[in-house]
Amino acid sequence: MRIEEDSVGKMEVPDKALYGIHALRAFYNFPITNEKVQPVLIKSLIQIKKAAAITNRDAKTLDTKKAAAIILACDHLLNHYDRSAFIVPAIQGGAGTSTNMNVNEVIANLAMRLNRNDIKIHPNDDVNQCQSTNDTYPTAGKIAMLSLLPSLIAAINKLIHALKSKAKEYQNALKVGRTQLQDAVPTTFGNSFNAYASMFHRDLHRLNQVQVDLKSVNLGGTAIGTGINTSSYYTSHVVPNLSQLTGLSLYQADNLIDATQNSDSFVEFSSVMKALAVNLSKMSNDLRLMTSGPQDGLNEINLPKRQAGSSIMPGKINPVIPEVVNQVAFEVIGKDTTITMAAEAGQLELNAFEPIMFRDILISETHLTRAIETLVERCINGITVNKELDQNEVSKSAITATVLSPYLGYETTTKLIKTALKHHYSVKQLVSDKHLLNDKLLDHLFSPAVLTNAKIKQIINK
Amino acid sequence: MRIEEDSVGKMEVPDKALYGIHALRAFYNFPITNEKVQPVLIKSLIQIKKAAAITNRDAKTLDTKKAAAIILACDHLLNHYDRSAFIVPAIQGGAGTSTNMNVNEVIANLAMRLNRNDIKIHPNDDVNQCQSTNDTYPTAGKIAMLSLLPSLIAAINKLIHALKSKAKEYQNALKVGRTQLQDAVPTTFGNSFNAYASMFHRDLHRLNQVQVDLKSVNLGGTAIGTGINTSSYYTSHVVPNLSQLTGLSLYQADNLIDATQNSDSFVEFSSVMKALAVNLSKMSNDLRLMTSGPQDGLNEINLPKRQAGSSIMPGKINPVIPEVVNQVAFEVIGKDTTITMAAEAGQLELNAFEPIMFRDILISETHLTRAIETLVERCINGITVNKELDQNEVSKSAITATVLSPYLGYETTTKLIKTALKHHYSVKQLVSDKHLLNDKLLDHLFSPAVLTNAKIKQIINK
Amino acid sequence: MRIEEDSVGKMEVPDKALYGIHALRAFYNFPITNEKVQPVLIKSLIQIKKAAAITNRDAKTLDTKKAAAIILACDHLLNHYDRSAFIVPAIQGGAGTSTNMNVNEVIANLAMRLNRNDIKIHPNDDVNQCQSTNDTYPTAGKIAMLSLLPSLIAAINKLIHALKSKAKEYQNALKVGRTQLQDAVPTTFGNSFNAYASMFHRDLHRLNQVQVDLKSVNLGGTAIGTGINTSSYYTSHVVPNLSQLTGLSLYQADNLIDATQNSDSFVEFSSVMKALAVNLSKMSNDLRLMTSGPQDGLNEINLPKRQAGSSIMPGKINPVIPEVVNQVAFEVIGKDTTITMAAEAGQLELNAFEPIMFRDILISETHLTRAIETLVERCINGITVNKELDQNEVSKSAITATVLSPYLGYETTTKLIKTALKHHYSVKQLVSDKHLLNDKLLDHLFSPAVLTNAKIKQIINK
Amino acid sequence: MRIEEDSVGKMEVPDKALYGIHALRAFYNFPITNEKVQPVLIKSLIQIKKAAAITNRDAKTLDTKKAAAIILACDHLLNHYDRSAFIVPAIQGGAGTSTNMNVNEVIANLAMRLNRNDIKIHPNDDVNQCQSTNDTYPTAGKIAMLSLLPSLIAAINKLIHALKSKAKEYQNALKVGRTQLQDAVPTTFGNSFNAYASMFHRDLHRLNQVQVDLKSVNLGGTAIGTGINTSSYYTSHVVPNLSQLTGLSLYQADNLIDATQNSDSFVEFSSVMKALAVNLSKMSNDLRLMTSGPQDGLNEINLPKRQAGSSIMPGKINPVIPEVVNQVAFEVIGKDTTITMAAEAGQLELNAFEPIMFRDILISETHLTRAIETLVERCINGITVNKELDQNEVSKSAITATVLSPYLGYETTTKLIKTALKHHYSVKQLVSDKHLLNDKLLDHLFSPAVLTNAKIKQIINK
Repeated sequence: MRIEEDSVGKMEVPDKALYGIHALRAFYNFPITNEKVQPVLIKSLIQIKKAAAITNRDAKTLDTKKAAAIILACDHLLNHYDRSAFIVPAIQGGAGTSTNMNVNEVIANLAMRLNRNDIKIHPNDDVNQCQSTNDTYPTAGKIAMLSLLPSLIAAINKLIHALKSKAKEYQNALKVGRTQLQDAVPTTFGNSFNAYASMFHRDLHRLNQVQVDLKSVNLGGTAIGTGINTSSYYTSHVVPNLSQLTGLSLYQADNLIDATQNSDSFVEFSSVMKALAVNLSKMSNDLRLMTSGPQDGLNEINLPKRQAGSSIMPGKINPVIPEVVNQVAFEVIGKDTTITMAAEAGQLELNAFEPIMFRDILISETHLTRAIETLVERCINGITVNKELDQNEVSKSAITATVLSPYLGYETTTKLIKTALKHHYSVKQLVSDKHLLNDKLLDHLFSPAVLTNAKIKQIINK
Repeated sequence: MRIEEDSVGKMEVPDKALYGIHALRAFYNFPITNEKVQPVLIKSLIQIKKAAAITNRDAKTLDTKKAAAIILACDHLLNHYDRSAFIVPAIQGGAGTSTNMNVNEVIANLAMRLNRNDIKIHPNDDVNQCQSTNDTYPTAGKIAMLSLLPSLIAAINKLIHALKSKAKEYQNALKVGRTQLQDAVPTTFGNSFNAYASMFHRDLHRLNQVQVDLKSVNLGGTAIGTGINTSSYYTSHVVPNLSQLTGLSLYQADNLIDATQNSDSFVEFSSVMKALAVNLSKMSNDLRLMTSGPQDGLNEINLPKRQAGSSIMPGKINPVIPEVVNQVAFEVIGKDTTITMAAEAGQLELNAFEPIMFRDILISETHLTRAIETLVERCINGITVNKELDQNEVSKSAITATVLSPYLGYETTTKLIKTALKHHYSVKQLVSDKHLLNDKLLDHLFSPAVLTNAKIKQIINK
Repeated sequence: MRIEEDSVGKMEVPDKALYGIHALRAFYNFPITNEKVQPVLIKSLIQIKKAAAITNRDAKTLDTKKAAAIILACDHLLNHYDRSAFIVPAIQGGAGTSTNMNVNEVIANLAMRLNRNDIKIHPNDDVNQCQSTNDTYPTAGKIAMLSLLPSLIAAINKLIHALKSKAKEYQNALKVGRTQLQDAVPTTFGNSFNAYASMFHRDLHRLNQVQVDLKSVNLGGTAIGTGINTSSYYTSHVVPNLSQLTGLSLYQADNLIDATQNSDSFVEFSSVMKALAVNLSKMSNDLRLMTSGPQDGLNEINLPKRQAGSSIMPGKINPVIPEVVNQVAFEVIGKDTTITMAAEAGQLELNAFEPIMFRDILISETHLTRAIETLVERCINGITVNKELDQNEVSKSAITATVLSPYLGYETTTKLIKTALKHHYSVKQLVSDKHLLNDKLLDHLFSPAVLTNAKIKQIINK
Repeated sequence: MRIEEDSVGKMEVPDKALYGIHALRAFYNFPITNEKVQPVLIKSLIQIKKAAAITNRDAKTLDTKKAAAIILACDHLLNHYDRSAFIVPAIQGGAGTSTNMNVNEVIANLAMRLNRNDIKIHPNDDVNQCQSTNDTYPTAGKIAMLSLLPSLIAAINKLIHALKSKAKEYQNALKVGRTQLQDAVPTTFGNSFNAYASMFHRDLHRLNQVQVDLKSVNLGGTAIGTGINTSSYYTSHVVPNLSQLTGLSLYQADNLIDATQNSDSFVEFSSVMKALAVNLSKMSNDLRLMTSGPQDGLNEINLPKRQAGSSIMPGKINPVIPEVVNQVAFEVIGKDTTITMAAEAGQLELNAFEPIMFRDILISETHLTRAIETLVERCINGITVNKELDQNEVSKSAITATVLSPYLGYETTTKLIKTALKHHYSVKQLVSDKHLLNDKLLDHLFSPAVLTNAKIKQIINK
């Protein structure tokens, strides 16, 4: 054991530990969960430390040898992530200071070890030079969020692709439309799958838009955004350096005071994911409705069978993939409440509740990505449509007589439909029997192509 | 009383009533609240009816005289809104059909009355021609939302202007920074007010962005987005006509099936308002904190006195304006939950729960607008800062010694601050006493301008 | 106009107005909504004022004549509620002081008028004697909530009764069970309706339990719960007096400091209503599912037809009553978020955000009550079951073969069901064909009574 | 690898694996998270399996040797929990079937291994005999929740004890009261800490009440609550047997259909935890406010120092423990949204979304327990009060003059306080100077004991 000291007092730290007293205190202070801070967030901080060391070296406020040692340690950790070094729990007080200090300590100790202790690196004075938790931590949060986004976007693109393929496969397969769960005018499965694809395009668009806000970072603002204890060189060069290192087009926020204390960008990002969750849940609900059966439900489509559905009812198969997607959606929506409350609780120059926001946003991103991939691979791709059955339903559906309304009027058509339903008779036949319209027009109106997109022509002149 | 009939049966309707059987059934069916459908939504529907009549006339599917009568009635109602005619409750089942039919009925009846019953106008066949509730109602919802937006945006601009004025007024007024409610390095009130202004710029940006989605309407899609019972002319001309009538740059959604069944755009808009609510609540919390006192709080600023604060404690004054803003924020955040659940509950070709979404979104827009205007006029504009008191606090604040850290190191500075706090002594004096830094540099470092934006220079060469 | 003065300054008040300067300032300070404070809350405050006057008279701290005048005014207002006198907006800052002062002012002025100005009554010194907003307002909130509860409870009892009647009516009507929307073992409509009735019994139980907390009031605690400016007599007698006046079994909270500052009881009450909302929404969803059709849905039950369902699709009827119940449920759930945030935002000796909590809770209570009554009268009572159709479905359902599993084993039964489904053949017949079980046992097992509650007997000895 | 088969097809399962094909399919089907089903839930299921085996043995529907083997395996697993055997992810589709089957498979395989394969145990026919996922899984969920409750209740009791100790320690330490963050009449720290203790008593009460609902289980209802495929003996004996095994006073729900399909009890339990979270967050907010400083805040109390507060500001200490409690509160409140949505999404005979409900409720319970323990041990126990400073503030506070109001009237007192504040003068002295009250009475009124609980006596006779 080695003894370390901080402003609170002395503490034993295991000799081998790369972390130091601050991380260890945090480990003991926050025994809420076994979950550690997500590696993607730690790695983002390490990239910041590297960018800061480069910038401080160039600003000549950090000794060249120290800078080299710090950069070496950062690269080492980025290539060989060491879970045992990063011990701070994901749910933590202290506005991220514990996470930042854990990283500072590990880099400092590793830098010294890699240099055989030929050099002295201080976690605060050197690794954290020109930085504060209050600018590095939110910046790291945004980098982490941005670095998980491409996977989420790729998953949505896969989903759109899968839906469009299904739409093409079943382009003309007729389907009873339903509004308010009641039989409505008909449509096609091509329409339905394309509609979902179209819906997810909006999610893509929102995720692209929200990146603008996420790319705006407060690095350089240090403690409260005034940039105290930075050099002018650092202030203007650290974000471009970081942007280059990460390959993300980061830029420095116009107002660093604001960017340090307000968390609305995280609310916005969470809300965009919530809208995606709503869409996923809605489509999952539809899939479960359309596959309800196999005998006494809508029974319009078949989802691929993934597992036996019941421990007691033999042969039962359930829509387990949409069900898990629903649950991920509920989780993401719940996390949006958490993030909203945490953001609202910011006070004066800082929001102390970023740890829970970052942790939950990163989980939402990850779970949505995996849920969508699962949905595509284990469900959408294998959907089949019961074409004949569905077409048969459309052909018997009384509500298709809606196409008669422009010709016969709403009230007359209402009566025809009621009569037909009552006597289990075809409306088309009824109209024909009563010679209300000629059979040629009737055949035209009730043809599938017209039914799913009936156009009227100058009725008043008919 | 006159007798009207629909598919359910016959019903008495008051002779004078402009509304008809459908509206009256809805009135009896949904006795949840006395609130009627908001006039801004009704007016948006009337504009749609007018645009449809113009388009159907031009398409030659609606008799010219009928069209003229409908247009006349629409103009009449837009100029002389008649609350007694629109009786449908705001909270309603039926996916908006009751609201749409109430409008159809009123226009039909008014059109006939204005033409001394020389003409027969049918609510469905004529007024609702080529339309369905399922395309007119969501389109009207979006028009209503868009038409309330300029007021909200204007209010935010006023708020930004007021904050920037305050920032200018107190540009150099020193203020103790606080992170996690603990004393931190200093800032100025100029910084603080500018930071709020900067924050609300993001809200403006989001409100501008969200309009793109709101301007995409599904008019022309009729019942389920397939455009059944429309003419080709109508489909391509009705939205441009409506766009011209409303002065909003509306455009027809690419995929009308999707646009008819999915409500994520409403979730998005509500979420953008939620983010604004979070920002308003955070600033209101800060104002209440900074004005806490008058004797035993932070006592940094004074809000204008608006009313006696207590029925028992004489002379007490409370921050009632920020408090009401907080509550509007909580209301808007709660409504976001409602809207999210309603959007998620859409099924297959329609979301039946748009009535609650529209009502709540329109309330959120209105309440936010009024809350912001109230905040500007009755609070922000009259704020004064206790400059001397605050400057005095900064000058005594031990944590300002953070500026020494780059020169003396984090650990030495920690000890100096602890000593100073323990003995109620000035850190600056302590450093001077111990000859750790020369007095010139100390004076420089502790000067207000440097304290609020201290830059370090090539320390390692010092 | 008369001139009134308070600690902020002078102001003109209309001569006729019963309210005074405080109410008028509040009217101008909070122009968020046109909604006034709910009468049920104002009336509860008036009852408190009456109880206080009685108690202070008996304590001999209030002149007998003054007390009589105040009591007279209270009785007058309780019998003839005057909306024009209570002008304070429902959404307000100031922790309810505006509402309390509005009541104090109206009572004082009315008391003087009713006594031809022979007497001088001061709103604070006399009407508000021994009181603060901080104890009268939360106490009034609780009285208002309690006074709306019997209607809500009666509505739930009506609902339970209606469901049980339906259960009795369709006691043996068979119904395909569905788990995860997939066909499951059969049940009866009797079971289904009874299950809903049973579910709502839990809601009743919770509403009864929550009253215990609501009946605990902090009256007597005045400003912060220390009871400053009360007499000992008052402290011990005011709550019993109020309890008697209201007929509610109110009791004084053990710890008045706690009871003045914490709002968890309102969170609890809102949550109980949220659980009720969840149950109502779940049942409404089920009703909409079971009535889906009329041709291409489950089509198991018929809801009474309440209005024409579509402006474009003739003859369409929608489940509008369950739909409006769903929306009320979403509203109540959203309000729970609002209330939770408002409760969490309390600080130190007071929660300043009770106005939004009280307003929203009272709306939730009212809307739930009306929604349930509407559901009973306009939907549940008129439900009919498509008995033959449903029975036919059960008799064809392959999954009923689950009853064979204890005799043939899970794996064999799985294969039988798969075969039957594939070949559209009866499982029972298949088993009979293969002589796996004798026909007598088969007839027994597949009889409706056994299917819906099959008991196995000592299988291993079979 | 061994080959197993189910209704979907064949699959390779590692030879050593205790789990079988069903668990393995689930493992691949739900790759959302690495989190496995919580052991406390698995163990609860194992107890159910044991109770079922005992009951089925006694009912003579399960061979005695098989029963013994199953019971042996259950005991083995309860004593030596084997994480590698339970591979099903926490977030899963399928309504818990995967979890139930994982347990069935592990028990069956272990039972056979422990009996050297002398016996054949089938996961469905034997281990799952007379059971369905739909009754065992919710029952297990409730057992798991109940088994975590004593720790939560113990933690709250510890918290109450700690708060009462603090109250005793600082019984008479004066404190400025604050309503709406503005100075109000004084109180004592004894009052404040006791008020928190009193508040948490309500949480205890609610947690005790909610157990009644949690103890009501649907075991015996099997697939949909009709109890299909159970023996009469089993139905009436399995819950008593389980109750005895678990030591929890479980009872069988009156209506098993209802208990199988509705999830309001989980909403209720989550809401009770949400109310607790609101209280914890409110108190944490207060602690952070009262400890704000050390120089420029309220600075009334000192929290024990737990870690250095800043990577850039030396000597800074932050209230990290209350901050982590706030975040756990936000998490629990967010999870309540998730649980509410999942409960509302139940359909017909089952709620398929119990997996996310159970996982989130169990996390909320655990995190709340740990957060409270952390709060007690690492914060509350070490709080000290700045007695002199606080007393000094009270003595100078103008608003204490509220005690004069019953003697001088509200308006006169208002003027006195305004004058005193304006001239930084003592109100008491001002009254004395003006001879408005005699000094003896003044000394009495402004004595600490009276200030914090001033009683008036028959003023009108004075």
